[in-house]
Order: sequence, then structure tokens, then C-alpha cells
Amino acid sequence: MAEVTLLVEETAGARHAVVTLRHQGKFNAMSRGMWIQLREVFLHLQQQALAADPLRCVVIQGAEGHFCAGGDISEYAGFRFETGSLRHFHENEVWGGLSAMLACDAPVIAAIEGNCMGAGVEIASCCDIRLATQDSRYGAPIGKLGFPMAPREAALVAQVLGPTLARSMLLEAGLYDAGAMLQRGFLTRLHADAATLKDDIQQTVARVMRLSPAAARMHKQMMRTWMQASDAMLDAQCASAYDYADSPEHREGITAFIDKRPARF
Amino acid sequence: MAEVTLLVEETAGARHAVVTLRHQGKFNAMSRGMWIQLREVFLHLQQQALAADPLRCVVIQGAEGHFCAGGDISEYAGFRFETGSLRHFHENEVWGGLSAMLACDAPVIAAIEGNCMGAGVEIASCCDIRLATQDSRYGAPIGKLGFPMAPREAALVAQVLGPTLARSMLLEAGLYDAGAMLQRGFLTRLHADAATLKDDIQQTVARVMRLSPAAARMHKQMMRTWMQASDAMLDAQCASAYDYADSPEHREGITAFIDKRPARF
Amino acid sequence: MAEVTLLVEETAGARHAVVTLRHQGKFNAMSRGMWIQLREVFLHLQQQALAADPLRCVVIQGAEGHFCAGGDISEYAGFRFETGSLRHFHENEVWGGLSAMLACDAPVIAAIEGNCMGAGVEIASCCDIRLATQDSRYGAPIGKLGFPMAPREAALVAQVLGPTLARSMLLEAGLYDAGAMLQRGFLTRLHADAATLKDDIQQTVARVMRLSPAAARMHKQMMRTWMQASDAMLDAQCASAYDYADSPEHREGITAFIDKRPARF
Repeated sequence: MAEVTLLVEETAGARHAVVTLRHQGKFNAMSRGMWIQLREVFLHLQQQALAADPLRCVVIQGAEGHFCAGGDISEYAGFRFETGSLRHFHENEVWGGLSAMLACDAPVIAAIEGNCMGAGVEIASCCDIRLATQDSRYGAPIGKLGFPMAPREAALVAQVLGPTLARSMLLEAGLYDAGAMLQRGFLTRLHADAATLKDDIQQTVARVMRLSPAAARMHKQMMRTWMQASDAMLDAQCASAYDYADSPEHREGITAFIDKRPARF
Repeated sequence: MAEVTLLVEETAGARHAVVTLRHQGKFNAMSRGMWIQLREVFLHLQQQALAADPLRCVVIQGAEGHFCAGGDISEYAGFRFETGSLRHFHENEVWGGLSAMLACDAPVIAAIEGNCMGAGVEIASCCDIRLATQDSRYGAPIGKLGFPMAPREAALVAQVLGPTLARSMLLEAGLYDAGAMLQRGFLTRLHADAATLKDDIQQTVARVMRLSPAAARMHKQMMRTWMQASDAMLDAQCASAYDYADSPEHREGITAFIDKRPARF
Repeated sequence: MAEVTLLVEETAGARHAVVTLRHQGKFNAMSRGMWIQLREVFLHLQQQALAADPLRCVVIQGAEGHFCAGGDISEYAGFRFETGSLRHFHENEVWGGLSAMLACDAPVIAAIEGNCMGAGVEIASCCDIRLATQDSRYGAPIGKLGFPMAPREAALVAQVLGPTLARSMLLEAGLYDAGAMLQRGFLTRLHADAATLKDDIQQTVARVMRLSPAAARMHKQMMRTWMQASDAMLDAQCASAYDYADSPEHREGITAFIDKRPARF
């Protein structure tokens, strides 16, 4: 079962939403279908955030003790080795989901447990508040798969991670525990276990719902504009960003992963 | 008594200035008059910083154990509910004061005790060195008042706070103690109490005054240009940034504060 | 003996390079000749990084327990007091070396012990991974010499240090130990002593060499573009950035250093 589900709850007359990533047996790795669902869910939430009695807050979490372990690599051999389909995947499916999250005018809270890798770091980077448990783990060891993070995705995470942490994750496949991610400023708050994380999520949702939704909307619109200042540059980068589709390292990295053997680059 | 005072002192033949924010009974909350005085004081200081025997250093502090608790909300009902007067307040009065601070070619040191909220964070973000005591507290819970921080002010603080801390302060009304603000990189140094803070201020002033004022001036001019790279974007944002003046949430937030009751958004 | 040496090693069929800064008796301070050598070494390494069997990783270190203590000030009186030769030094010699480092498509690891000051911070800021020992020390007390860091160099280090740390180093001549530099996010990892640093360097090199070099190359090209987004602004700044060549503070700062007396600004 691979799906992105949406639950809208009402507390004291105000609504908030809970989005759950679920991919059984794969630590909620994002399949192509899940990226498409993520976009649909957040387009719907944004309509609600602009409604007369607006949605006030969104929580995004993973099912069964993990946030998201990355992309679903078992699908990769089917579309990654041709430039056009690779571009479609990154620019439409993945960026479709991430950009819909970024476009949401209600504050988005990430509740992070367990694995938060690759696509998980990307999804968390689209959130406004990042709350996590001590057992959560972070990284983007994409170099092992023989290809780079796509430009829009890498610009997004580098902006939130900062230059030193982003370079460690991308260039030496650095893995970081929750304490380090708090210390480096990626996490907003850290909790000993799932129970105290849940308490903080509830309190944060309640606190956000007491604040002005119009003020939140205007703040998010402002900050979104600042992040998108470099869109022209990213458009230029993306023109040739997927030409590696049929390259030997890309094929070797993904094939080796599927074959459960070390890649030879 | 609400005022911004200026004291120029001479040590070993070199001059430095001490600017004090004072608003009795309101933890030095900035009144409109104080913003105008802040601008006048820093325009004067910049003249001194460019003089033949230049002013070398500026310290800004609050009176009576607090830095600045925000804006003087008691004035808000008088001008905030009309777009033109609201724009004038943010673009001319507040930004007039903050931009005069940013334009100062002498290094500016913030001495922060007690409350540093809203306008206090904005003023501290215009400083080059931020020294504080353990008891200082930080936040910008402006969502409680039903309106957002103005674009130029929010861009300023987000640049210094970084994206994660800025979103927490603006979107969940997050409050932070001095230890967290040191750990997140906002504070330059932290002190146990007012006495050791005062010692560090004196030593820092003396150290800055031994350095080349021309080098400081060129450094500040360079760094100012980098911060202002996004001015065109901010101009565009500000064109419609104050249309919320007469909105229900804005009226409710400020009216509730004045009535000493929780706002209902 | 002042020189930049290059050693290329092969491990398990993949090559990495070790670049060593060496200036005996001066903690490896960069002479003009060393900047030129640094450029030549990195132009050569970039050719290797683009070759069919590419170089995978570069380590840069200092000789004899120090990284780099700054520039070789003993040379300064010979060329710094005339705008044209000063511009040539910063824009061609220094930036020639630093920009060649930034242009390297293989991941670059800094191994930092002892003094890392001024030019040392600049060189370390061109690296992707910064590993250091507890005894390393950091700063850029250039204001003592009566001149500012050149615009391209200052923009580089400010981007990596962040605004608060950069302002402390440049405007109050702040010095920082290794623990503070880890806490502020400049260092990737910190080690108790040279032996454990060496172990980490070896492990990091081995880890980088197992990753896809094409992925690393594309990541570095992306991140380089983001850093260079402000080139037009820097070009404009550099047009007048060296007019201070013959200024009294510049002459006094350098002359005082050479005379081993405090500068009087």
C-alpha cells in the first residue's frame, strides 16, 4: 500500500489537516503515484486555506514510525534512463508535489520520526515548522545511485540546510542524527519520543490556530517570493539538467541498488 | 517618557556613541515618535562616522533592564486601519529608523537584556554585533495582533535569523531564550548577567576603536549592498503590502490587545 | 620555503589528490607566488576531474600543524599602495587561486589544524567538507591592517560563515576556536587531535571515492551557479574597491605590522 492520505479535523471550531505518507515495507518511500497524490492533496488544502472559514494549519507525517526514506527506487529503471521521462518525473511529478506544498498558505508542520532521507529531506524542507524525535535520521546519499538531486530540489534543501550541511549530505553522503540537525538549525524542536512529539504537535497546532490566518497567509506569501528569487537561474539550469539520463553511472547506481550489490563508479 | 537618547563619549581620543531606547512602563516599546527619533539619531551618527575624525562605534541598548518589547500598540488604533497611514508608518517611520541604522558606516553593537520582541528583534537585526544576557527573551508573535510583519522588516529579520527560526517566530509565535538564540547564531556572545555584559561592551568598543574606521566603513558598505540585492522585489511586495489595513483580523487583533482579551480569529 | 605542492595518490584504483600549503616559519601564510601556484594546481586538478578516469577527491592541508595564517604581509608594502597593483593582487592572484578552487568539480576536503586566519578562512570557504582539530583557531582581523577584505573574498566567506559570524570577524576582529566554528556551522566535523583528524580524512576520501563522480560534478556545478548569482553586483563593487590603495590607514596598518608596533588609526 503506497498512498498519501488526508484527514481534516476540527478543534474548537477551527480546522486543521493531517497528511500521512504511507508505503508499507518501504519506510514510506515516495512512489510516482504518491508524488501525484501529494500534489492533489496540497492543491486541495490550498483551496481550503483560501476559503471563507479557512483551514488554519497542516501537519505532515509518515506512517508507522518513519517519515520518508526517499524515492521508491524499484520504479527507477522504468523511466530514469531517458531524458524526457526523467525530466517529466523531476519537473512535473516530484516538483509538482513539492511546489504544491510550498504554495500552501497555511503553516505546515512536519512531524518527523525514524528515516528522513532524500525525498524525506525535500518534503521536510517545504514545511514551516519541523518537529522530530531523537531517533530520526537524515541524509541524501544520492551519489550512491549515480545521479544528482535535481536543481530545484537541491536549491530548496540547500536553502534550508545551509551550505555546509548541504554539501556534506550531497558530496560525501553524510548522515546526521536528530541532535545534529537541531544544532545545525534544520529542526525547530526535538523530542525524546513519539509521545512528547505528539504533545508538541497538538500544542503547536492549537497555537497556530489561535493566530490570525490572514497574517500567516501574508507571511507565507512574502517568504515564498524570497525563496523564488532565483527562478530564472533554476530554469536555465533545468534546461540541461536531465541529459545524464542514459549515462553509465546513472544506470550502474540504480541497477546496483536493485541488484543489492555495491555500485562501481 | 518615550524617547531615544544619544550620548557621545570619548575614550583615548576616539569617540563612540551610546543610543538608549526608553519608554517607561512599556519595556521600551517603540512609539511613532521614537522611530522618528531613531532615524534622526542615526542620520546624525552617520554624519559623524563620515567626518574627518570619525565616530568609531555605536552601542544601542534599552533602559532599565530591557531592550525593546515591540511597538507601542496603544497607538495602533489611531492609524493602522487605513492603508495610506499604515503604509506611511511602516515605510517611512519604522523603515526610516531601521534603514538609518543599516546605513550607519560605524559598527553598531546591540546590548540586549530582558525583552527583545518584534521591533526589538528588528532593531537588533540592524546591528553588527549582538551581545546579550542570559535573561533576554526573543520573539515576534505578531500573528496574535492580526497582521504580518511588513515586507522590508520581515526580509531583514529573516536574513539574520535564518529560515527555520524566522518561520517559527512568525508562523507559530515561537518564543526563544538567549541560549537558543546563541545556539541558532543570532547572538554573537552571551553573558551571565548585566555586569559581565557591560564588561564585554566596553572591551568590544575599545577593540573596535583600535581598528581602522575606513576598513569598517568599506566592510559595512559591501555587506549592505549584498543585503539590498533584493530591493526591487521588496518594492514590488510593498505595493500591495498594506491593503489589509481595514481587514477584520487586523481590527480584531489590535482591539483585543487593547481590551486585554484574547483575539478571536 | 613557500610553496603549494600537489601529490596524487591512488587507492583501490581511484585517484585523489593532496594539496599542501607550506611557508616555513610563517604558519603557511600565502605569498603571491603561492596564490599563483594554488591556481595552477587547481587548474590541473580540474583537468583531471574532467578526464575519462576522473580524479575523485581533493584534500587541502597546511604543513607542520597549521592550515594557513593569512597573507604574507612582508610582501604588502611592495604592491599594496597603488590601486592598479592592488587590484591585480586581489582580482588576479588571490581570486585566481580561490576561483580555481571553486571551479574544481571534484569534492574538496579541508584538513584544518592550528591557525586558520584571513586567507586561511578564504581557502577553507572554497572547500566542500571542512574537518578540523580542537586546537584550530579562526579569524580575519584585517581591520588591524587598515584595509577591508576584497569584495569577492568577503562575499565568499560571508556566505559560508553567515551574517553574524562574518560581521564579528570583520568588524570587531573576532577570533573563534574550533568548538565555536562547529557550533556556528562552518566546520563539518571536529576531532580531538591530528591522529583522529587523519583517520576521518582517510575515511571521507574513501567514502567520496565510492560515490558517483558524475553526480558530484553536477552537484558542484549547480551549487557554484547559486553562489555566483551575484556576480554582476560584485563586478560593480570591484570597480572602485581598490581606490583605498594609497590611503593613510592602509599605509599605517601595514607599516605598523612590519614595524612590530600597534597601528594608530
